[in-house]
Amino acid sequence: MTALQSELPSLPAEPDIALAERLFDELSARTGGTEGITRASYGLGEAIAHDIVAREAGGLGLTLRRDPALNLYATLRGRTREHAIMIGSHLDSVPNGGNYDGAAGVLAGLAVIAGIVRAGIVPPRDIVLTVIRAEESAWFNASYIGSRAAFGALAAAELDQVRRSDDDRSLAVHMREAGADLDALRAGASVLTPAEIGAFIEPHIEQGPVLLAQGAPVAIVTGIRGSARFRHVVCRGEYAHSGATPRALRRDAALAAAELTLRLDELWRDLEAEGEDLTITVGQFATDPAEHAFSKVAGRVDLSIDLRSRSPALLARAPDLMRDLAAQIARRRGVSIELGPLSGTEPALMDDRLAMRLTGLAEAEGLAIPRMACGAGHDAAIFANHGVPTAMIFIRNAHGSHNPLESMEIRDFAVAARILMRFCLEPGNISA
Amino acid sequence: MTALQSELPSLPAEPDIALAERLFDELSARTGGTEGITRASYGLGEAIAHDIVAREAGGLGLTLRRDPALNLYATLRGRTREHAIMIGSHLDSVPNGGNYDGAAGVLAGLAVIAGIVRAGIVPPRDIVLTVIRAEESAWFNASYIGSRAAFGALAAAELDQVRRSDDDRSLAVHMREAGADLDALRAGASVLTPAEIGAFIEPHIEQGPVLLAQGAPVAIVTGIRGSARFRHVVCRGEYAHSGATPRALRRDAALAAAELTLRLDELWRDLEAEGEDLTITVGQFATDPAEHAFSKVAGRVDLSIDLRSRSPALLARAPDLMRDLAAQIARRRGVSIELGPLSGTEPALMDDRLAMRLTGLAEAEGLAIPRMACGAGHDAAIFANHGVPTAMIFIRNAHGSHNPLESMEIRDFAVAARILMRFCLEPGNISA
Repeated sequence: MTALQSELPSLPAEPDIALAERLFDELSARTGGTEGITRASYGLGEAIAHDIVAREAGGLGLTLRRDPALNLYATLRGRTREHAIMIGSHLDSVPNGGNYDGAAGVLAGLAVIAGIVRAGIVPPRDIVLTVIRAEESAWFNASYIGSRAAFGALAAAELDQVRRSDDDRSLAVHMREAGADLDALRAGASVLTPAEIGAFIEPHIEQGPVLLAQGAPVAIVTGIRGSARFRHVVCRGEYAHSGATPRALRRDAALAAAELTLRLDELWRDLEAEGEDLTITVGQFATDPAEHAFSKVAGRVDLSIDLRSRSPALLARAPDLMRDLAAQIARRRGVSIELGPLSGTEPALMDDRLAMRLTGLAEAEGLAIPRMACGAGHDAAIFANHGVPTAMIFIRNAHGSHNPLESMEIRDFAVAARILMRFCLEPGNISA
Repeated sequence: MTALQSELPSLPAEPDIALAERLFDELSARTGGTEGITRASYGLGEAIAHDIVAREAGGLGLTLRRDPALNLYATLRGRTREHAIMIGSHLDSVPNGGNYDGAAGVLAGLAVIAGIVRAGIVPPRDIVLTVIRAEESAWFNASYIGSRAAFGALAAAELDQVRRSDDDRSLAVHMREAGADLDALRAGASVLTPAEIGAFIEPHIEQGPVLLAQGAPVAIVTGIRGSARFRHVVCRGEYAHSGATPRALRRDAALAAAELTLRLDELWRDLEAEGEDLTITVGQFATDPAEHAFSKVAGRVDLSIDLRSRSPALLARAPDLMRDLAAQIARRRGVSIELGPLSGTEPALMDDRLAMRLTGLAEAEGLAIPRMACGAGHDAAIFANHGVPTAMIFIRNAHGSHNPLESMEIRDFAVAARILMRFCLEPGNISA
């Protein structure tokens, strides 16, 4: 029991934070390199991480099951088997990533279950530690491979068409090498029945700086933002001599793209003022290295636009707002702006009753817990969009995620685990 | 005599436009490749071009002289040798450049002198076809090597320190191979005496689109813009998740750099409204390819700023205006903007009386001739800044310069040549 926990109201069972700390250390030691940790989806690092968690879960006497995509379900039997509580996240990482993205959710679930087992308590209902495969899209350029497979929503064609970015071998080849059941996957059956699941709760480090700024250890997520993206916008003007071309005769692609960037930011501000949930980001912006010069008006700029929102309605109308903006600027500045193909993902709503219940439990811990939208994609979106009552608990984290500097304090992790523990032990936790 | 010329008032001697056309073709055939022409400074292409011009000038009976830097002076004797009229430009080009930048000025002078010789006229004063070496900075990253050497203004240290960008051999090595007199160059004597020169006139294709837009064949240049440049501006913010980082917590380098770009354009607009002569250009603008992503707020942008003006006062105060702008944006957006080292060139004023006289002669051709600032650097700036009464005649040209698409109409070239012819034959052309 840590110093922090000793100051808090005692629970019938305490999460085993020491176990989690030991496993964070083991994960870091066994999957870490000179820069960050690397746990490739269906690769060695992910396999090591799954082995560690399976070993510990087995040691606690949980029932282990692996589905055809190698997602791991470790079940602690409850007084009823109906409407099980699933808790978990993924264990793969981006190349040279941080130790907490994904792993924190799995180890929070394990710490709670270990605490219950050690207290000799039989929980009100089954608790299923849920360890998803291949959540990151860094390796295969496909999102949520593991969780989609669990719901039978991984298209058979993806298995052969999607290739790992660094070795160009197919997803099927990598999955088979890892031990997956390709025949079952191609048949596409769902191994999860949404109506039978009481709740899926995914604890995860926050990937932005909001909790740090607010001074709060954890938050309850209200929804996972979807996206509307123009990843390959091209603005074409005309190269011209910087000293010899007057204002009125310029068709300056850099100026037009700069104006588009600023106007998109104003669009964000205005929509937010109307009460919309969104972010807009121009993350890539480049004149053409083969042609540009300090002494030339820029003839071409390539840029990216990434809009995210919890609102399906906004995601539907935003592309036209952006097209209008681009067309106005193009007309006025004598350039062309081709937004290019639109891509994106669906937003996912978290379960309101579940969120309210978790918020209430946090208040029992003496916390005024913030509620916030989640801007990054998570397996929780797949569970929610398949009709499972879903919640996410964000844990405060510095320096963002997907980099070696991810920095979660163990005492914040412990706060999330205690909220989960209260939820798991509460007889009326599931309203279904 | 072309169709155009036959419609114009006849002159005692007509410029030999057919000769110029033949030599443009020969230059193109002998120094052209699959893409544009290439006449390296002190390299093969420039040597071929000088040989062609020397051959023709010799054939006309002109007196040829080469200075230690291999600039060529071909003189037609006049009734007086005092206050000679120098006409010319350079014959080197950028790699894969166009056939007219530089060459048009030399061949205009040659066409005029050839016309005078063939008419059997002794002009009022000496006319010196002036063929400068190494004007382009593409090869040696040093400007005006030939004309500076002619005035003894090429530092001896440059000979050894400046290296050709593609082979890293020194300027001294290349000049020696071309036949230059390195000992004389190191001694640094001027071979030109400004007070003894009546005028230097440099005809040159316009490098911008102003004459095309105005529908005028030629213009008289009022001054050559100098520059104040920040070639390596770095804007640093903080990389962050595009979906998970709210507006208020962003330190977005792309947005800050985009605002700087737009504000610099507004600064240009405001200064121009105050009557200042200038251009401001952000020609290079790039997020970091090693770090940027469509799903990341940009943490770094590199950009360039190039300000040009005829006004020494504006060039002196503009850097502080730009620094203030950058500091305001950096403070407001929570980023840093380092403008980096300031570089630049001095502006050069053209001779007012000479410009008025050329304008008058153009009017005698039936032309309302525009006057305009020149935004690019030229040897004329060196002559002017050494006290030589200097003028430039711009010839209309499409597609800018320094590329294979340079496009000058021979009838526009002929207009410039006729103005020069009138000037050369006018007894009172030099007021000194």
